[in-house]
Amino acid sequence: MKMVDVGAKPKTERVAVATALLRMLPATRERILAGKMEKGDVLAAARLAGIMAAKRTPDFVPLCHPIALSGVEVTLEPVAQGLSIRATVRTVDRTGVEMEALTSACAAALTVYDMCKSVDRGMVMEAVQLEHKSGGRSGTWERGA
Amino acid sequence: MKMVDVGAKPKTERVAVATALLRMLPATRERILAGKMEKGDVLAAARLAGIMAAKRTPDFVPLCHPIALSGVEVTLEPVAQGLSIRATVRTVDRTGVEMEALTSACAAALTVYDMCKSVDRGMVMEAVQLEHKSGGRSGTWERGA
Amino acid sequence: MKMVDVGAKPKTERVAVATALLRMLPATRERILAGKMEKGDVLAAARLAGIMAAKRTPDFVPLCHPIALSGVEVTLEPVAQGLSIRATVRTVDRTGVEMEALTSACAAALTVYDMCKSVDRGMVMEAVQLEHKSGGRSGTWERGA
Amino acid sequence: MKMVDVGAKPKTERVAVATALLRMLPATRERILAGKMEKGDVLAAARLAGIMAAKRTPDFVPLCHPIALSGVEVTLEPVAQGLSIRATVRTVDRTGVEMEALTSACAAALTVYDMCKSVDRGMVMEAVQLEHKSGGRSGTWERGA
Amino acid sequence: MKMVDVGAKPKTERVAVATALLRMLPATRERILAGKMEKGDVLAAARLAGIMAAKRTPDFVPLCHPIALSGVEVTLEPVAQGLSIRATVRTVDRTGVEMEALTSACAAALTVYDMCKSVDRGMVMEAVQLEHKSGGRSGTWERGA
Amino acid sequence: MKMVDVGAKPKTERVAVATALLRMLPATRERILAGKMEKGDVLAAARLAGIMAAKRTPDFVPLCHPIALSGVEVTLEPVAQGLSIRATVRTVDRTGVEMEALTSACAAALTVYDMCKSVDRGMVMEAVQLEHKSGGRSGTWERGA
Repeated sequence: MKMVDVGAKPKTERVAVATALLRMLPATRERILAGKMEKGDVLAAARLAGIMAAKRTPDFVPLCHPIALSGVEVTLEPVAQGLSIRATVRTVDRTGVEMEALTSACAAALTVYDMCKSVDRGMVMEAVQLEHKSGGRSGTWERGA
Repeated sequence: MKMVDVGAKPKTERVAVATALLRMLPATRERILAGKMEKGDVLAAARLAGIMAAKRTPDFVPLCHPIALSGVEVTLEPVAQGLSIRATVRTVDRTGVEMEALTSACAAALTVYDMCKSVDRGMVMEAVQLEHKSGGRSGTWERGA
Repeated sequence: MKMVDVGAKPKTERVAVATALLRMLPATRERILAGKMEKGDVLAAARLAGIMAAKRTPDFVPLCHPIALSGVEVTLEPVAQGLSIRATVRTVDRTGVEMEALTSACAAALTVYDMCKSVDRGMVMEAVQLEHKSGGRSGTWERGA
Repeated sequence: MKMVDVGAKPKTERVAVATALLRMLPATRERILAGKMEKGDVLAAARLAGIMAAKRTPDFVPLCHPIALSGVEVTLEPVAQGLSIRATVRTVDRTGVEMEALTSACAAALTVYDMCKSVDRGMVMEAVQLEHKSGGRSGTWERGA
Repeated sequence: MKMVDVGAKPKTERVAVATALLRMLPATRERILAGKMEKGDVLAAARLAGIMAAKRTPDFVPLCHPIALSGVEVTLEPVAQGLSIRATVRTVDRTGVEMEALTSACAAALTVYDMCKSVDRGMVMEAVQLEHKSGGRSGTWERGA
Repeated sequence: MKMVDVGAKPKTERVAVATALLRMLPATRERILAGKMEKGDVLAAARLAGIMAAKRTPDFVPLCHPIALSGVEVTLEPVAQGLSIRATVRTVDRTGVEMEALTSACAAALTVYDMCKSVDRGMVMEAVQLEHKSGGRSGTWERGA
């Protein structure tokens, strides 16, 4: 096992986008959107948790390089089945930020689950996946392309 | 927003089990099982990452209580679509360990993704979900029951 | 230097309340309350930061014992000079939570500063202080009593 | 909420200085300076806590970028009302270190409080504030200028 | 791999003592003791680092349980070959604190090395070892007994 | 005490190698190599712990700069007295990675100890030392040269 040496790679601008779907009961989604969860503002907490988790990715994913993230944005949108989560992470560094984007999306979903589990313990995270990455030697990758 | 006060709850034995499915190309799964991934032993790294992440849950999920975990086990089994991940977390405390089990399963899946992404960037985490929890005032919950 | 041994103390219910005042321009306060800061919902972020920081206190204050916090609540109220912050921390443990309450209030104030500094770099944290603590051998303490 | 993208900014040399005043009883100050606090060398512990906290700022302040700090210095000077704390943080990066300097000053003050609270629970942190920052697009800022 | 379940064990008082020897040039030792190292008070920094590291042990040693430490003390004594380090850790919990004591001794030694390496890069940590542990089902263990 | 300012130093490629010897009973070594320790794959866990600890060095060693590590490799080889551990850390930064390599070797050794202590509590870490460092103003250093 090793954290592969990236010292010879140039620093380039890199972006990664990951998404996740958190499936829940319609009533749970409505209560979140109405801001009526007992533990507080679920969407704000999830966005913040996603941002903070992106910064902690190397603590969470053992072989991930520590990276100086230049930007992180997390959005949550209501969809028919629940909430759609999207994390966008940017850096100018020697290695990509796919893991940071995926970790961020997971943390946002876990935070929603935590704040709503007393009313809907059956919620399921689906389709946690990379959508796009660009920058670096391996270039651009798009899901479905 | 608040971390709700659990000080009046009794300390009881609690268990939570969470699972996740990491969908991947058959060739990726075979290479993992054969121990031929360039970054090293994927299954060992994923188990360890899952255990360590369980301990860090309160750093990732903002309103989670810090809990003295008494045991964590993470297993990864090959299935038709890829790898099935199962995290079991135990404590004797005032609040449950559902979030620890879900966080652990996510970290194990993210670690597999990280170690294999150079050969299979399209891998998808599916069905990250609680299977079982017992202990505490709200008692036992089983998925599908 | 040492982290004094508290092993012989009984576990008792303990509460600590700390407050801080963040002085700012009236225009800054109005913009925060109107939810118009470019970086997002300042009050939600500050509450969450305060809660998370309470949990990390032993990492910030070297001789602090790690404590199983049972509850944390952070509130921010508009006052004439800016925002008044109040952090309440509870535990059932061998040592008090004064440092957790003070750390939480600091983190909430720092988060407001961070989100508003581009429009009001001169903001000042004043009167970061313990207001109340109860529980433990030294009993109840009230500021001004 | 988002961690704003700074990837397009150039890396420049940046400095920030923050100060705080910890008000205390004269007897407390004398005991600290005489090195007679039961928990050990208060000034050394506070300096070290300030340095370590500067490095952890992105864990404490949710929207702060992770930054490669190039230097941190924390000083504590006796003044009439107690101790005056000054934290100077330097980097060569895309964003400023104001939050690191303020966090460092808070951690140093909290550490003094922690080590002396058994003899002076009423200590108050006052005037936690930025004094100076230079570097970056917004240039130099001086308090009172 | 798993973090073994200790939930059925009773909470008992436990102590562990670990020691290490940091071998160095006589001139290095003299300079440390005279308080003339450029980076500051080496002994104070090492003691504090040892205490803080004890609290972070579960982050450092993957299968270690998170434990509520009740006390930590780190001492450094000059000996003929350099500095002798001794870390004593106490808890009232379900599992022992041997790893916390060993981790604490390592962190103290590493901190001395860091602060003196510019004048003595050849320093060597020797004999990092458990000296004593008591409490728990396996009872008391003494080195050399 | 201060974290010395390295902002004026150029970013250069740097490598550091540290080693440690973990002395143990022959039977312990055989059981590790045979993969028969109850807690799981000791060598895989130790390698991973060493890699993760390298990334956390600035949290363990107070005056260490946070550094963007570009690569980490940890190996463990059986020798007559037990296991020989070797950690190689690389960066392209303003300061060296000696502390990261030493911290990594310590964490790997501590992890082996933790996983085997129930059968061999007397294990001893010996000769934790820098073997090589290159890059930076002070140039190359080799033990014994």
